[in-house]
Amino acid sequence: SGVKPKPPPVTHYNLNNVTITANPVENRENVLVLTPMARFYQEYWDNLLKLTYPHELITLGFILPKNKEGNAATTELQKQIAKTQKHGPEKDRFKSIIILRQDFDPPLPSQEESERHKMQNQKARRAAMSKARNSLLFTTLGPATSWVLWLDADIIETPPTLIQDLAKHDKPLVAPNCYQRYYNAEKKAMDERPYDFNNWQDSPTALELAGKMGPDDILLEGYADMATYRALMAYMYEEGADDHLEVPLDGVGGTALLVKADVHRDGAMFPAFPFYHLIETEGFAKMAKRLGWQATGLPNYKVYHFNE
Amino acid sequence: SGVKPKPPPVTHYNLNNVTITANPVENRENVLVLTPMARFYQEYWDNLLKLTYPHELITLGFILPKNKEGNAATTELQKQIAKTQKHGPEKDRFKSIIILRQDFDPPLPSQEESERHKMQNQKARRAAMSKARNSLLFTTLGPATSWVLWLDADIIETPPTLIQDLAKHDKPLVAPNCYQRYYNAEKKAMDERPYDFNNWQDSPTALELAGKMGPDDILLEGYADMATYRALMAYMYEEGADDHLEVPLDGVGGTALLVKADVHRDGAMFPAFPFYHLIETEGFAKMAKRLGWQATGLPNYKVYHFNE
Ligand SMILES: Nc1nc2c(ncn2[C@@H]2O[C@H](COP(=O)(O)OP(=O)(O)O)[C@@H](O)[C@H]2O)c(=O)[nH]1
Ligand SMILES: Nc1nc2c(ncn2[C@@H]2O[C@H](COP(=O)(O)OP(=O)(O)O)[C@@H](O)[C@H]2O)c(=O)[nH]1
Ligand SMILES: [Mn+2]
Ligand SMILES: [Mn+2]
Repeated sequence: SGVKPKPPPVTHYNLNNVTITANPVENRENVLVLTPMARFYQEYWDNLLKLTYPHELITLGFILPKNKEGNAATTELQKQIAKTQKHGPEKDRFKSIIILRQDFDPPLPSQEESERHKMQNQKARRAAMSKARNSLLFTTLGPATSWVLWLDADIIETPPTLIQDLAKHDKPLVAPNCYQRYYNAEKKAMDERPYDFNNWQDSPTALELAGKMGPDDILLEGYADMATYRALMAYMYEEGADDHLEVPLDGVGGTALLVKADVHRDGAMFPAFPFYHLIETEGFAKMAKRLGWQATGLPNYKVYHFNE
Repeated sequence: SGVKPKPPPVTHYNLNNVTITANPVENRENVLVLTPMARFYQEYWDNLLKLTYPHELITLGFILPKNKEGNAATTELQKQIAKTQKHGPEKDRFKSIIILRQDFDPPLPSQEESERHKMQNQKARRAAMSKARNSLLFTTLGPATSWVLWLDADIIETPPTLIQDLAKHDKPLVAPNCYQRYYNAEKKAMDERPYDFNNWQDSPTALELAGKMGPDDILLEGYADMATYRALMAYMYEEGADDHLEVPLDGVGGTALLVKADVHRDGAMFPAFPFYHLIETEGFAKMAKRLGWQATGLPNYKVYHFNE
């Protein structure tokens, strides 16, 4: 053709000019919300829409497994995306949305809670989850990203100011406390209980256990036959105390976690192999620490996990 | 304003549909060429332009340090980019180009070769290089990327079919042999010698040395006072032998290295901390292996490093 095409894009980014501050709204900082999703929950989407962080600064990234359950979740997710992005009020619309499908088989056929938590299944399951999180991260993080909010697909209730509240702490990694609402049959009333046990502080016992392990063994939290005596953030909640109390953490969970993009850029990812006897999100906290970034937990700042 | 804005982009990628095959040209596979660059060499750019892989499938990514030398290199790089992308023949133009500036100080003030190679400087220098490589990788890898070609800024001569030739091996990681041309004063003629000693096969001695090391020590190749007896690919070249002979590698260099994007997506990066007593590109090969991906070397397939 005789038409001279436009020269292709040349983009010049100065990573120094992308700020990562305690006032991200003021500084127009881009947030990447990353969600590995095996099932779609309407409550997750509704909660996401209610976040008051300017949606035009938020990019959403999802990764869903390539199985029947993942196909169903993708269909439901796309339905809600179309509703929000095409027909919803402008202020609800997100900057952009990327949906990835996972090109490897999840190791377990069923996602039932009891099945998921069996200790012997944990290693394979969490290795697959690590790879899903890494695929999502490596594929979606861009030059303009300031923050990454990891948010599981079954987090159905957070304060609407979640992103601002966590960013205000100006920490490389900051994790709220993940609880679960349930019906307490004894009290005959709704109640709540701790859910995410991957936010913890190391204990001498855990370190001693790790020291005796084979190089490929992993130390898992939340199993009676492997008592670690780690201090679990799940149990540090204090009624009426300061919402913004900070505690240092050695392991983190992925249910909700705000990370400065530079932590990932330095190379911190989710090890699918034992890393200091830790994998996935717990291994990520350790890797971040090896790179000079310390994790922080907020025991009194709660988010809620779905109850199956 | 009364104008209804276009809904923001929703992109649906199926990582399964992005192929990574031995016939990347036929399958229109996208290649990301990543170059950490402290100095600009015209010969590097000229060689890049001569690559016959379709340029419209190639994205270039650069990261340059934020110092005087890096500023000068950025200026020269941008001049050449403008020439190629705006005024050059269409077939020379690349799909897109991203230039990043490194937002941390390189640990050494001078880039002189003798200074660079001093053993006591290596650990800090290679940790900084790891972070530069990771920033570049995490920031530029996209959902459509099939291959990543790591190519140092001082690689000034390769076969024009480099990408096709390496991809043809259909290996997760494949490294050519990096040599250097020089004037041989004895022979009174141009000659060549091995340059990159980071492509190697493990030895019992190296493994034994590593076994005796402290957890934070690293094992470096190419220093007389730390003889590892590793088998170095640099010395495996055989005149007249098959260019496409393959050998398995345990450590790789970054001068030239073709990697399937899925290796990185699984989480393989350049450790800035000792990983099995290895860092940077050598640690990357080990990490890839932990994720199930074996590195391959081509001892008889040569590329050439600049001679200062
Ligand atoms: N892409 C992907 N996501 C998954 C897979 N399994 C679980 N998830 C999602 O990953 C997150 C954590 O998994 P979940 O089963 O809720 O873990 P638990 O709450 O710690 O038991 C949730 O958002 C799930 O929807 C999987 O195989 N692939
Ligand atoms: N971004 C960045 N690139 C660097 C830095 N130091 C070296 N490089 C580049 O990284 C590559 C490898 O470094 P080089 O000094 O050539 O290593 P050697 O050939 O193994 O001694 C080359 O492309 C350099 O231009 C740095 O501090 N920052
Ligand atoms: Mn869950
Ligand atoms: Mn070099």
